[in-house]
Amino acid sequence: MSTVPAKMQRVCVIGLGLMGGSLGLALRQRGLAAHVVGCGREALLHRAAELGVIDSGSTDVGEAVAGSDFVFLCTPVETSIRLMREIAPKLKPGALLTDVGSTKAAFAAAAREVFGDEAHQRVLPGHPLAGRELSGLEHASSDLYADCVWTLTPLGESAVASHETLRAIIRAIGARVVDVTPEEHDRTLAYTSHLPQMLSTALALTLEDAFGAGNPALEIHAGGLRSMLRLAMSEPAMWEQIAASNPENIAAALERFESELRKLRECLGNAEFRKKFEEARKFAKELRN
Amino acid sequence: MSTVPAKMQRVCVIGLGLMGGSLGLALRQRGLAAHVVGCGREALLHRAAELGVIDSGSTDVGEAVAGSDFVFLCTPVETSIRLMREIAPKLKPGALLTDVGSTKAAFAAAAREVFGDEAHQRVLPGHPLAGRELSGLEHASSDLYADCVWTLTPLGESAVASHETLRAIIRAIGARVVDVTPEEHDRTLAYTSHLPQMLSTALALTLEDAFGAGNPALEIHAGGLRSMLRLAMSEPAMWEQIAASNPENIAAALERFESELRKLRECLGNAEFRKKFEEARKFAKELRN
Repeated sequence: MSTVPAKMQRVCVIGLGLMGGSLGLALRQRGLAAHVVGCGREALLHRAAELGVIDSGSTDVGEAVAGSDFVFLCTPVETSIRLMREIAPKLKPGALLTDVGSTKAAFAAAAREVFGDEAHQRVLPGHPLAGRELSGLEHASSDLYADCVWTLTPLGESAVASHETLRAIIRAIGARVVDVTPEEHDRTLAYTSHLPQMLSTALALTLEDAFGAGNPALEIHAGGLRSMLRLAMSEPAMWEQIAASNPENIAAALERFESELRKLRECLGNAEFRKKFEEARKFAKELRN
Repeated sequence: MSTVPAKMQRVCVIGLGLMGGSLGLALRQRGLAAHVVGCGREALLHRAAELGVIDSGSTDVGEAVAGSDFVFLCTPVETSIRLMREIAPKLKPGALLTDVGSTKAAFAAAAREVFGDEAHQRVLPGHPLAGRELSGLEHASSDLYADCVWTLTPLGESAVASHETLRAIIRAIGARVVDVTPEEHDRTLAYTSHLPQMLSTALALTLEDAFGAGNPALEIHAGGLRSMLRLAMSEPAMWEQIAASNPENIAAALERFESELRKLRECLGNAEFRKKFEEARKFAKELRN
């Protein structure tokens, strides 16, 4: 592992929301790419240029990817799959395609279908575990990826030079690369990301159902409730695509949680309750350490 | 409502953990009490004196309350009920007894039983919605109650001078007083505090069950999981008492949540899913505003 990352020449960032915008800022502010071309709607391109996210832009994906050495799909997962099919014939030979989608098995399968035997060389799917309940270019930050885990799900085992460059660049923007298979990624994320999201959303729906929005009784709450409702503010359009691309794993995680919650309810007021709280506390402390 | 709060003369704080310790600091640093006497174990009294939490201390509750004008029970709710019975005969005539317990109906019922017709004058149960996942005197802070909601659950309607002094003092340490009946308090808190706690604890148990503690796959997580697991680190002994003193309301809130979560699971991947996410997002944004 080199400590001086290779510099990328022409980089294309498709999708200029929180993820793509933050990526452009991180690459440009750290001098990790000679030229960043953005792809998005006209107004977004103007704003991205103003904010220093891109060097140039195009509303046409074919034009944007032409001549780029690295292409980052920074759109929700179903959109990225559709765009991959569209840009595949237009990619420069040797260019590496990656993405930042929240699920990986569907994207990986589509990459194998589109690129066949070349899929491993030409596509290295990724998922930086960064993000906020706030979305959009206006919230982009060059530090969004600092200290985050950036998973990569290689589609084969042989060494590819462009993959090493991508890994070095990811490290240079402050993230930690973790390799995992697409299937293991999606199963794990169902528990560590999709389940917590569902709980926060269902908590909001439960409170609304029990009190009605704006009920003054709801003033009687503390920081604990606020932190448990933060994820519920996430972007619904993004979660619709995550749910659609990982339904079996999410359903399994939810069923397992439902069973744990029922068991906790059934031991309200008996000695088992305290034991469960001790166990959960130990686990949470270790994980958060 | 006076803007210059009356000063309390002798105040007794029973229980020198996070809540009692922070109360002593807040009263003494703001000059709101002429003398604060603490009650707790020997070693705790020494440490509390060192930290500036108390002026004097006693390990004996009878001795500690003797001559005090205001007595704050800062122990878990079942302990506070037991201590109220014990100190009732030793309270100075005209002294006001209050508490900081997380549930109120059981404490209020015990107060009526112990003090009969005088309960309203002599006891004003309270619950500041402050706290942290960290417990104990060492984490006490004079700002713990700043900007929090401090609920009071009066046991009757007539005006009592000592109640007004207590309200003024609570405001002087930065909290906002909200009056509510003990029953409404416990029903509301089951949703805004106890339910979120149970979800965080059950989430930790689910992850442990699915992966086992220390599984490296669990590294693949982001800030969302961390915030959803914060409450799971709370003190089990305190939650055991909260659960035991509010089981029906907690069970009802859990059942309602279980139903919402099941509905969310059943619409994974259909149009209803997005609608639910939009609704939850709107609610969470309004509540957190």
